Amino acid sequence: MATMDDIAKRLGISKGTVSKALSGATDVSESMRRQVLETAVELGYSRPVRQGGRRLCIFIENMAYQAPEDFGWDIIMGFRKMAEPAGAGVDIVPLTPQIQKQIPYDQYMLSGGYSGALFLGMTLSDPWMREFRSCKTPAVLYDNHVRANPYTAYLGIDNEEGMELAVTRLRELGHRKIGYLSGALGSFIHQVRYRSFFRSLRQCGLSDDPGLAGNSYYSSECLERHLPRLLKQGVTAIICSHDLLAHAVLIHCMEIGIRVPEQLSIIGFDDIPLCSYTAPPLASIRQNRPQLGRSAYYALASLMDGIPISTLLLHAELVERASIGPAPDAPLSETGLPAGLA
Amino acid sequence: MATMDDIAKRLGISKGTVSKALSGATDVSESMRRQVLETAVELGYSRPVRQGGRRLCIFIENMAYQAPEDFGWDIIMGFRKMAEPAGAGVDIVPLTPQIQKQIPYDQYMLSGGYSGALFLGMTLSDPWMREFRSCKTPAVLYDNHVRANPYTAYLGIDNEEGMELAVTRLRELGHRKIGYLSGALGSFIHQVRYRSFFRSLRQCGLSDDPGLAGNSYYSSECLERHLPRLLKQGVTAIICSHDLLAHAVLIHCMEIGIRVPEQLSIIGFDDIPLCSYTAPPLASIRQNRPQLGRSAYYALASLMDGIPISTLLLHAELVERASIGPAPDAPLSETGLPAGLA
Repeated sequence: MATMDDIAKRLGISKGTVSKALSGATDVSESMRRQVLETAVELGYSRPVRQGGRRLCIFIENMAYQAPEDFGWDIIMGFRKMAEPAGAGVDIVPLTPQIQKQIPYDQYMLSGGYSGALFLGMTLSDPWMREFRSCKTPAVLYDNHVRANPYTAYLGIDNEEGMELAVTRLRELGHRKIGYLSGALGSFIHQVRYRSFFRSLRQCGLSDDPGLAGNSYYSSECLERHLPRLLKQGVTAIICSHDLLAHAVLIHCMEIGIRVPEQLSIIGFDDIPLCSYTAPPLASIRQNRPQLGRSAYYALASLMDGIPISTLLLHAELVERASIGPAPDAPLSETGLPAGLA
Repeated sequence: MATMDDIAKRLGISKGTVSKALSGATDVSESMRRQVLETAVELGYSRPVRQGGRRLCIFIENMAYQAPEDFGWDIIMGFRKMAEPAGAGVDIVPLTPQIQKQIPYDQYMLSGGYSGALFLGMTLSDPWMREFRSCKTPAVLYDNHVRANPYTAYLGIDNEEGMELAVTRLRELGHRKIGYLSGALGSFIHQVRYRSFFRSLRQCGLSDDPGLAGNSYYSSECLERHLPRLLKQGVTAIICSHDLLAHAVLIHCMEIGIRVPEQLSIIGFDDIPLCSYTAPPLASIRQNRPQLGRSAYYALASLMDGIPISTLLLHAELVERASIGPAPDAPLSETGLPAGLA
């Protein structure tokens, strides 16, 4: 393990300057501080744990978390309920691509005195995603999977299982042609769910025609372009990659006169609090968010203790609500599509 | 939660008889005991945790574990190092198909007073494997994955990552045609490794011709039938699904005059202690067995506490040893296969 002396020697400066730069003192120039941080990361220096315990960081983007009904709230609460009794301090840091471009992940963590981080809501195009292939500061990635770096772990629910539960249940209800609407495939988890949809169809002995799925960054495009196409193909049930999209489909169906679930069953994904309050209430695949938060802390503490956790997934659960029901005798494509269908 | 009274009422017998049957008293007939156990499982009865803490079970088959150099030893030690300080008693039970046919898993656990189990070495054809789809007693399955039952968890290393590390390293060493020898595909983990081999080839931009792999229950068949076939196709490196097979290939190569690694590189899987002592020492993908044991306890304790862990994988690690080296200028198929090749 490298020491401050090693950093000082490498740069030909005093240990005092190194110490000041690492602690963020204002009488060290920004360029010197940057040079010290870079060298510290390169040499594998890590700051000793301060009195008062480790400091941990939850980076969050693309996810609401500030109110109890927000998706991130329970995850963060679960994490803190484990971390804080264990003596760790937790900072919540809203993340932007700008921050990621300004400073590499390892340097951010070292300069902030953090021992490890949980990431919520990262997309595949985030600048730090590439750094996770070789970073040295433990990072637990919710819904993202980086292979071959023992300092990162993938946390989530078993999305393949979730999809299997949804498809299997619809099959039991008599549905033979099931469609899938997805957000853009630019996130790891949307890719996993997309693949799992077709795998589950095959497992249930149903047609896995690629035309049964549609995806778009815009839910309006899913509604206007993909939904009519799926209905014309004769689907009697639709699974959506996330609840907000499923909710948009519900509302659209109401507007154009498709009865849910009598004519069309709909299942969402994530089971956000909203699902209980839609009309009809939305069946969904639950992510157990408090337990995800607790498990995230376990995974992070393990990585910090040298236990090389790679993947930690929780079981998915199908929450049945009134948006699904028995398959109609015939699909809308035979009984007559509503005129309002784009 | 069902009580002894519920069982007694259902069967129309006294609570005393139920209590005796559950505690294994000898003055209750075997058929009565069986009936009580069946009803108890059916009603969801679970025995209160005894004074002295939970009793846990490690079932083991197809795996040596009684000496420190055995594969199972470190896993069991890791598990016990976590379980016993937490106040849980651990029994090691060698498992056979006969035991599994005699009594259902849930009944075995209830009659033994066990709260949960770790399974080592199960194959897909084991009778209890089907029961894991609906069992109610927490079970952690090393190297087996049962979906859609919140009472089971899959534990192992990230085998896809391990295969990726092996193929990537061989690619860096200049190998362009890599072969794979596998045990029979009757186990979950051999199926995963087989699929991962081809996936890794594609990721590395190498040919994924299905003819590059061979599998058999008998290592002799791998040596006599598949190895010559792979060499004639021009492979310069071979990955084996487990170390004992890789060791058999090493010995066979020595016998027929193929120099390892100059003419052929070989990588095993699991990193059993033997790997350091073969000639040359065998490169392998390590399973961190002590940490697998500790993680198994974590997963089991979580299931018992209602935290629905589905999957817990540890990072794989490539241990480089002298059995791999730079690719030869030309494969044996061009420079001349040894006469002794079957």
